[in-house]
Amino acid sequence: MIQTDGTDELLRTLVLVLDLCGTFAFALSGAMAGVRRRLDLFGVLVLSFAAATFGGIARDLLIGATPPAALQDWRYLAVSLTAGAIVFFWSSLIEKLRNPVRMLDAMGLALFAVAGTEKALAFGLSPAMAALLGMLTGIGGGVARDVLLAEIPAVLRSDLYAVAALLGAGIVAGGSLLNLPVLVAALAGGLACFSLRVAAIRRGWRLPVAVAGRS
Amino acid sequence: MIQTDGTDELLRTLVLVLDLCGTFAFALSGAMAGVRRRLDLFGVLVLSFAAATFGGIARDLLIGATPPAALQDWRYLAVSLTAGAIVFFWSSLIEKLRNPVRMLDAMGLALFAVAGTEKALAFGLSPAMAALLGMLTGIGGGVARDVLLAEIPAVLRSDLYAVAALLGAGIVAGGSLLNLPVLVAALAGGLACFSLRVAAIRRGWRLPVAVAGRS
Amino acid sequence: MIQTDGTDELLRTLVLVLDLCGTFAFALSGAMAGVRRRLDLFGVLVLSFAAATFGGIARDLLIGATPPAALQDWRYLAVSLTAGAIVFFWSSLIEKLRNPVRMLDAMGLALFAVAGTEKALAFGLSPAMAALLGMLTGIGGGVARDVLLAEIPAVLRSDLYAVAALLGAGIVAGGSLLNLPVLVAALAGGLACFSLRVAAIRRGWRLPVAVAGRS
Repeated sequence: MIQTDGTDELLRTLVLVLDLCGTFAFALSGAMAGVRRRLDLFGVLVLSFAAATFGGIARDLLIGATPPAALQDWRYLAVSLTAGAIVFFWSSLIEKLRNPVRMLDAMGLALFAVAGTEKALAFGLSPAMAALLGMLTGIGGGVARDVLLAEIPAVLRSDLYAVAALLGAGIVAGGSLLNLPVLVAALAGGLACFSLRVAAIRRGWRLPVAVAGRS
Repeated sequence: MIQTDGTDELLRTLVLVLDLCGTFAFALSGAMAGVRRRLDLFGVLVLSFAAATFGGIARDLLIGATPPAALQDWRYLAVSLTAGAIVFFWSSLIEKLRNPVRMLDAMGLALFAVAGTEKALAFGLSPAMAALLGMLTGIGGGVARDVLLAEIPAVLRSDLYAVAALLGAGIVAGGSLLNLPVLVAALAGGLACFSLRVAAIRRGWRLPVAVAGRS
Repeated sequence: MIQTDGTDELLRTLVLVLDLCGTFAFALSGAMAGVRRRLDLFGVLVLSFAAATFGGIARDLLIGATPPAALQDWRYLAVSLTAGAIVFFWSSLIEKLRNPVRMLDAMGLALFAVAGTEKALAFGLSPAMAALLGMLTGIGGGVARDVLLAEIPAVLRSDLYAVAALLGAGIVAGGSLLNLPVLVAALAGGLACFSLRVAAIRRGWRLPVAVAGRS
């Protein structure tokens, strides 16, 4: 969903493939959470689709881009359902592949944050708000997954997940403010988001909790 | 809300009456859940309205039909509040009428799924996505009810509720793909949804749960 | 966000200041809830922003006013984040100021309910639905805050919070029905909402719970 300057067909295809990879990773996370909470097959598939697409859907509703992109292109649905079915039938396998899945998830986060910011900018939002919406695109799916499971969204209490999305989105928004080429800003933002997220996983970096909350 | 070919006044009235019956049934389910969780009168009325209208409201937001139909026609509000008040003041009576209420609910599900699919098709969505939105119209109210009560939506873990909605919606969408008359597809879809739902209640049919989730 | 008849610059500024005060109060409530549930700094800021703006955002989505006002004016974001940071770093201080914070919150409720109703009327909704949306503007932030914390929204079970919002919104909607001057209706609605809310806090007024729920 990244808007590119030229019409480079190869680049477009690359972005689509990356976008579908991110969708796949997010759908895996939704399906795994659903299997753990003993949802039935349908519930697992709903959670896959919600985790994979809700961030983009929320962004599209907020900027007035209806119907949302995730409801216009059948590939997002197909990829989400495939991921959900894989987890449902081979969940022990997926649990073993935890590390590659987390890398895929970090890539999806970077890509969604960057693409979400670009789309919000294209719809005329200010850079600060576009960065906020880019972050929402990245984390919205995880929030929807956890709300549907009646849990406090993990993203509100955990290891630099949303902050990584905000960093990537902020770099893209800043690039637009400075009139940098879109592609440069997108690459820098995506790399920064991915690197910070991976570093946070590896080193257990976290944000502080308030003093009152600790006692 | 079903779009009919002709201008048959009688048919229109019939559809409106059925739609309001479905709204009533869904509002009952919301109010009963609210009474059980000890909400006050206001909370019970909010849950009635949310359970009765959220599916349609979510669909209308997603297809860009604002303001949503449920906020434009006062009858949906009036029927929801009436159902909520009845449950609030005579909840033991309603608990006794559990079986007729479940039949009414199955009818509401069938009607909302069919009408939701028709409306999404009318707004230009592809048949697959229209079926998805039809299902959402049918199950969205129950999801909102459960999320507001901080519970995992029953529809994600229970007896072929959403699958029945999807079957009905899918038949309507398939009918549109095959250029069948709208009325025929709507009747077939509604009947299929209602029958599957009633059979699932009677025979305790359920979807499988993943192996990992069972242990 | 209240639409005024004239172009009185002073009045506009007054309304903006009041609106930002309400935003500040709601953001405090979100941040305090987040600190109590041990969210990290980011989670607390998200809850501040959600509690302060979700009511208005939901209203804007429902009436089709995209992007929502809260995403177009950076001051709402700035005020929310400031309130969140204050609570995060000095939460024991804010807990001590509980009474002034509750007064500020009642003022925010009154203002949001009135302004939300005015905006819905301006977008062509009927007075009854505009009053409903005004109430939603007032209570939506608190609902979002509690749903994100996986709790049943306090507003569904507590002391005349939503009823006060509905009273204020209803007076504004009634004033529009009777063609009263906007300013008069807004002042009367705001005062009624604020007074009822404060009286409910002081005297512990509550709505009844259904008999079945009590047992």
